[in-house]
Amino acid sequence: MEHITSKQNTKVKLANALLSRARTRKKEGKIVLEGVRLVRDAWLNGTVPEFVLHTPGTDDEFTDKLARTGVDVSSVSDEVMRYVTDTQSPQGVVGVFPVPQPQYPAGAARVLILDAISDPGNMGTILRTAAGAGVDVVIPAPGCVDTYNPKVLRSGMGAHFRLPVIDMTWEQIAADVQVDAVYLAEGGGEQNYDDVDWAAGSWALITGSEAHGASEAAQQFATTPITIPMAHQTESLNAAIATAVILFEAARQHRQ
Amino acid sequence: MEHITSKQNTKVKLANALLSRARTRKKEGKIVLEGVRLVRDAWLNGTVPEFVLHTPGTDDEFTDKLARTGVDVSSVSDEVMRYVTDTQSPQGVVGVFPVPQPQYPAGAARVLILDAISDPGNMGTILRTAAGAGVDVVIPAPGCVDTYNPKVLRSGMGAHFRLPVIDMTWEQIAADVQVDAVYLAEGGGEQNYDDVDWAAGSWALITGSEAHGASEAAQQFATTPITIPMAHQTESLNAAIATAVILFEAARQHRQ
Repeated sequence: MEHITSKQNTKVKLANALLSRARTRKKEGKIVLEGVRLVRDAWLNGTVPEFVLHTPGTDDEFTDKLARTGVDVSSVSDEVMRYVTDTQSPQGVVGVFPVPQPQYPAGAARVLILDAISDPGNMGTILRTAAGAGVDVVIPAPGCVDTYNPKVLRSGMGAHFRLPVIDMTWEQIAADVQVDAVYLAEGGGEQNYDDVDWAAGSWALITGSEAHGASEAAQQFATTPITIPMAHQTESLNAAIATAVILFEAARQHRQ
Repeated sequence: MEHITSKQNTKVKLANALLSRARTRKKEGKIVLEGVRLVRDAWLNGTVPEFVLHTPGTDDEFTDKLARTGVDVSSVSDEVMRYVTDTQSPQGVVGVFPVPQPQYPAGAARVLILDAISDPGNMGTILRTAAGAGVDVVIPAPGCVDTYNPKVLRSGMGAHFRLPVIDMTWEQIAADVQVDAVYLAEGGGEQNYDDVDWAAGSWALITGSEAHGASEAAQQFATTPITIPMAHQTESLNAAIATAVILFEAARQHRQ
């Protein structure tokens, strides 16, 4: 197995560039996953890494298994590992993968549309939550942080590989999202989120940035604004929290 | 109005120390609130600041109003403001307040107990969520991040001043929390969270760190483990998300 100690190594330079620049990710069509958990999640979901870098002694059993299936695995020095990870305490395994290219699932009946979610932690948490709540597809609309930003991947905890996440313009959304109702989560809605009959038909839910409110395009596409009643003079909830509360109410109704 | 340009000024030194050190906050019994929104929230909820620092031209109307009610307001240079704020782009108003000393509300019927929530962003988001969901009191048990950490205050969005947040040991909890049932949110529970009758009596909910699971003390105090059913092979939810899903289900049942 190759052992890499130079930051000038082609793979190392590529991994570093993919880590820090959304533009490079778009151009190369590749992303970096950090940590054995994310790398394993992606691999178990059928995505084959282009190559894997690891520091010897870290998860050797897993990287040996990858190597035996034909994956290009190299060991690297601690310094090189620090150069290709975004975290303060690198986990010791990094994989470069092709960007997932999921198709829009025909007949998607539970659709989550994200309107200008710019915080990476919120974005990742929303993806993880959407997977847990059984959403069929998540659509980041314009203004969202890059889905494959390292922080989004980290807080997504593998959700990126367990449900389709597809960037779309509002024009594409209007063409492809065929549902009975489009709900918009915003403070001002007259209908409470739990008065909606989520099991009655297909739906899309649009959630947006708490800071700026819903975009005009979101408001035009939505059919019904909904609201979460709140106590203690609380004006609003964090965007990921509001999304979770609504999606799990929908999941609860579906189960019953 | 005094104008301060030196980092050696007594108030400035105190604000900086309170900002960075939990120990100083404990010892002095004081905290720093950053930004006009938090300072106003605390003030409107009846907490009088010991002093306020602001950069001239920032929210002058608000700071003038504070000064007229007898609050000690000083203007500071931009450099001094940067020294007393934790954020990358300082908001221009900082207030030093006494640590709130809420009493345990007699007859509290909806209690949230936090077990080793160590991430400041999660902690603040949970407080904000608990306020929105109408919880009567939040109890950070041992192992939680300091409630008055600047990041907790920021993500709490004023919840600290809208509902009682009281640090307790497990011994104090056992003595003071008198409820009909104590639910523990964990993956392994047999009862689904939405099969609980939240409106039937008083309850406490314990939520813990997703990384380490529930502590032994939490498991001993709990009467009923509960779980959130999940899709797409999702193993767990972020701690703040899981707390929100359960608390808003309880709020929904109470409303109906």
